Amino acid sequence: MYQLYYFPGNANLIPHMLLEEIGAPYELVPVDRANNAQKSPAYLKLNPTGRIPVLIDGDLVLFETAAICLHLADRHPESRLAPAVGTPERAEFYKWLVYLTNTVQAELLLYFYPDRLTDDAAAAAQVKKHAEARISGEGGMLDILEAQLARSGGPWLQGAHFTAADPYLMVMARWTRGMANPARNRPHLQRFLEAMAARPAVQRAFEQEGLKPPLY
Amino acid sequence: MYQLYYFPGNANLIPHMLLEEIGAPYELVPVDRANNAQKSPAYLKLNPTGRIPVLIDGDLVLFETAAICLHLADRHPESRLAPAVGTPERAEFYKWLVYLTNTVQAELLLYFYPDRLTDDAAAAAQVKKHAEARISGEGGMLDILEAQLARSGGPWLQGAHFTAADPYLMVMARWTRGMANPARNRPHLQRFLEAMAARPAVQRAFEQEGLKPPLY
Repeated sequence: MYQLYYFPGNANLIPHMLLEEIGAPYELVPVDRANNAQKSPAYLKLNPTGRIPVLIDGDLVLFETAAICLHLADRHPESRLAPAVGTPERAEFYKWLVYLTNTVQAELLLYFYPDRLTDDAAAAAQVKKHAEARISGEGGMLDILEAQLARSGGPWLQGAHFTAADPYLMVMARWTRGMANPARNRPHLQRFLEAMAARPAVQRAFEQEGLKPPLY
Repeated sequence: MYQLYYFPGNANLIPHMLLEEIGAPYELVPVDRANNAQKSPAYLKLNPTGRIPVLIDGDLVLFETAAICLHLADRHPESRLAPAVGTPERAEFYKWLVYLTNTVQAELLLYFYPDRLTDDAAAAAQVKKHAEARISGEGGMLDILEAQLARSGGPWLQGAHFTAADPYLMVMARWTRGMANPARNRPHLQRFLEAMAARPAVQRAFEQEGLKPPLY
């Protein structure tokens, strides 16, 4: 039985959707983020970076959301959440998953927590503004993802083949919902988000984390 | 025959080392970064993010360094650059590779290019200072990597098993060489860097990119 450490709406929502897609037995373990429990000595033993989520799989204690996605896809090949190893499709899957975690998610962390990089409110406001522009401005990250959905033909990042990168994209798109030009403003992303929201596994994950509309 | 688009010392150095480890035929294609060729229409067709490197593998045009590492490991299983798919060791490999790209590398980009997130020099200096502290300060990213090398027993991130995550760690450690408390100041990282520098494949990659000491 897997255990997924979570806080509602955090990055855990991505592997949570995957566990629902797979249909494997798992248990959700809440992290008391309101009281900074993710920085407690007990949690730091699981994940020295102090971030959420962590997945427990027997003796394996795994952090990094993208790594959890890759591991779940590998452990459940019957769910076809990733293309076959060694193929060009698998390489494309890696590409978008890595782009989502090291570029889009990293920039979203700057957007939400600019104070971590600055000393005063004026500098923090600059960082927040630039991060929003780099994500949702013209030619920015969301436009690159929109172009990929256009190229693939959709509804998913790799066309007709739903992969573990798609829940990742949905949660990143969701996190832009407060921006002036959020992901949903783009036609292919809008269609992608509607298709994601129609999946029963996605609906169950949102419901179990107690997340209310708007979902994206 | 692979083609690797590169600029000396950029992230391409990581897959370059891997290609040398594998011994596969490949060609290096220089990108005229001094003239911003990575933002040219021709290059953006290969990689819409305008970043270096790109790997060409037949019809596959692949960007994102970590994705290139994963793909090369998968295409050359005989080189044992990644643990077997579906194992706990493979999950650990994903974890460190993802951490290196989405946390360490993302923060290094803030350290080197704080002006991309700010409007004035004072704010940029704040971002640079915080990024350096988050990478090399007490309890920061390098300390987390040092603790992993201590835990694994070294010389590599996963103990006796050299993987594609190790060249990634070497290049990230190299990029800290101008900091007040660079990676090499830590005993396990120092031993790791010495072991990396002793590998003939690593030496060939440095030499072919024309990189001079100090290497880290």
